[in-house]
Amino acid sequence: MSVTAPQGFDASGVAVGLKSTGKKDVAVVVNRGPRKAAAAVFTSNRAKANPILWSQQAIADGVAEAVVLNSGGANCFTGSFGFQTTHQTAERAAELLGVSAGDIIVCSTGLIGTGDEVFRARVLDGVERGIAELSPTGGDAASEAIMTTDSRAKRAVHTHEGWTVGGMAKGAGMLAPGLATMLVVITTDADLSASELDTALRHATRVSFDRLDSDGCMSTNDQVTLLASGASGLHPELPVFTAALTSVCLDLAEQLQGDAEGASHDIAIEVVRAASESDAVEVGRAVARNNLFKAAIFGNDPNWGRVLAAIGTTTAAFDPYDVDVSFNGVRVCTAGGPDRPREDVDLTPRATRILIDLKSGTDTATILTNDLTHDYVHENSAYSS
Amino acid sequence: MSVTAPQGFDASGVAVGLKSTGKKDVAVVVNRGPRKAAAAVFTSNRAKANPILWSQQAIADGVAEAVVLNSGGANCFTGSFGFQTTHQTAERAAELLGVSAGDIIVCSTGLIGTGDEVFRARVLDGVERGIAELSPTGGDAASEAIMTTDSRAKRAVHTHEGWTVGGMAKGAGMLAPGLATMLVVITTDADLSASELDTALRHATRVSFDRLDSDGCMSTNDQVTLLASGASGLHPELPVFTAALTSVCLDLAEQLQGDAEGASHDIAIEVVRAASESDAVEVGRAVARNNLFKAAIFGNDPNWGRVLAAIGTTTAAFDPYDVDVSFNGVRVCTAGGPDRPREDVDLTPRATRILIDLKSGTDTATILTNDLTHDYVHENSAYSS
Repeated sequence: MSVTAPQGFDASGVAVGLKSTGKKDVAVVVNRGPRKAAAAVFTSNRAKANPILWSQQAIADGVAEAVVLNSGGANCFTGSFGFQTTHQTAERAAELLGVSAGDIIVCSTGLIGTGDEVFRARVLDGVERGIAELSPTGGDAASEAIMTTDSRAKRAVHTHEGWTVGGMAKGAGMLAPGLATMLVVITTDADLSASELDTALRHATRVSFDRLDSDGCMSTNDQVTLLASGASGLHPELPVFTAALTSVCLDLAEQLQGDAEGASHDIAIEVVRAASESDAVEVGRAVARNNLFKAAIFGNDPNWGRVLAAIGTTTAAFDPYDVDVSFNGVRVCTAGGPDRPREDVDLTPRATRILIDLKSGTDTATILTNDLTHDYVHENSAYSS
Repeated sequence: MSVTAPQGFDASGVAVGLKSTGKKDVAVVVNRGPRKAAAAVFTSNRAKANPILWSQQAIADGVAEAVVLNSGGANCFTGSFGFQTTHQTAERAAELLGVSAGDIIVCSTGLIGTGDEVFRARVLDGVERGIAELSPTGGDAASEAIMTTDSRAKRAVHTHEGWTVGGMAKGAGMLAPGLATMLVVITTDADLSASELDTALRHATRVSFDRLDSDGCMSTNDQVTLLASGASGLHPELPVFTAALTSVCLDLAEQLQGDAEGASHDIAIEVVRAASESDAVEVGRAVARNNLFKAAIFGNDPNWGRVLAAIGTTTAAFDPYDVDVSFNGVRVCTAGGPDRPREDVDLTPRATRILIDLKSGTDTATILTNDLTHDYVHENSAYSS
């Protein structure tokens, strides 16, 4: 059910020819209220696609009536023509829904530089057909329409004493088109203000999507949007809602990691006993972005030397000669020297757990990543050719 | 001739069984004077191998009598036993040469964690045999003894009105053992003080080796050592010497790039019209470290969208919507939008040139890198297995 699991939302997914495969490529999610509160987070890349530039303005007042999403073209670096396409998308949706264009959020994903007249015509067609097909059970179709190289749709639902959080996501960490764009729409029928949604969303994304670092490449189109209808009539305590939202975000993030098609391992890098949470994140991220480490995991090689060399490039507070490193529960390095033999480690399962004990404090963080594989290289060298 | 091209230097390369192939694995370079001035730069990784920890102390007084280098083991994260191995290496060489151990520089390369009793015994054997075989024509043998997965020895010589700079290097940017360790020894018979050498070396490495960023991974063992014998009796002006030294460093850096065995393209990323040199370096490095860009080059795909997305993550001063990008002389992106068709670009040659025009100033920098290939993944996943 994804985004239509909570009360007060309609959705749809239609095929208008943006994808050469003929699969669904435009999704619409509409908030029927009574509340129309919304919050969103956007890529921090300075190179932002036109839908990002538009949606940042549209969300500013904390109100959103609907989200229109397309796959099959990023509409990024397509100049003023591309921005007009996004504008027209919002105008057309607003007109058909009888609302203001400034309350329509737009998201796009696909190849950078794609956004010509044909693209525009098809997206506008998609808006009309998508709105015509809106349904309170349309969440699954919407989640399919935002897929690109995703092998499966990503959906999550969390229900909590009368109110529900539902979400859909697209992205395949390592090989999604163009730049592994991540698009997420999350809905809830809890009755919360825009500012509460914003607080909850920033916390939830910080510890979920922001810690998924499949290949270190940041997209021009990443966007996570949260809509609240208030249809349950219930106003949960913010920490309770935030926890539910976080669990949906973590569920979706793990689905994104697990669908990194080029990958053969889903790696969780858990950093413990750090002096601060930011130190733990910095250390985990340094490992997640180290190609030599990632290639070693592909080769089922518990190469702790590459872990130590990767974290040695950080500014986090720890003694590199007093660190322990475990691979799948086997401590192969203790106090910066060899411990149990590498042969004791079994790296054949897809799920891989690296534990890094910094012995410098009490904070912790887990970064999710994937290995560096032949398929990653293949898919990303062949994509736009 | 490499390091024995300048007057006043003897060198050797011997095989003592550190390499399972039976090839040369210990090199010795001795400065016969009359001057024994020296300078060195070291990895900035906080995880430093024992030879780095030793050599940083040994070089501090600006005097070095000799450099002992081994391949076949990094002697990193081998604890106090490993440090004692380095210490004993210096002691043995000093004893045989009749000098102080504190004037012996030691370098190692190979797998992290390698440095047991057998390793120590072989290295000490190599010191004895290497010193016994020292010769004023031993530079070539020395350059072979430091090779690891290098497919060829790297040497460069620059002669200038009576004085000479000679160098040797090991490293194969993308797939060298462990962590692409770069070891370089440069000699000169120019008569310069340690502080002049230090100034010249820091400038030369800043614009050469520091701009070679094959896979973003920093080794625990990187070291560049410069020895001056003064045997020519000539004291060149420092800028003249620095220029000669820089040309030797650039020559060696390009040889390292060209021998990245896993690579199919040598990529020069030239950033022009930057607001500062550091901005130019930051922008070039962001592209050099972007796996999606690197995989696209492997696929002969002039994917300028990935270039713009990569540089959008930097803090350099420029307008991402006003940047030009050329691939091998063909401008495919102008002012943040499409320009000439991608079909006009020929990316089949190994030598690849990316030009990024930031239109924000007058500074420039060129970063050297390689593409991300199947062979890179293969060699780095199979290395220690």
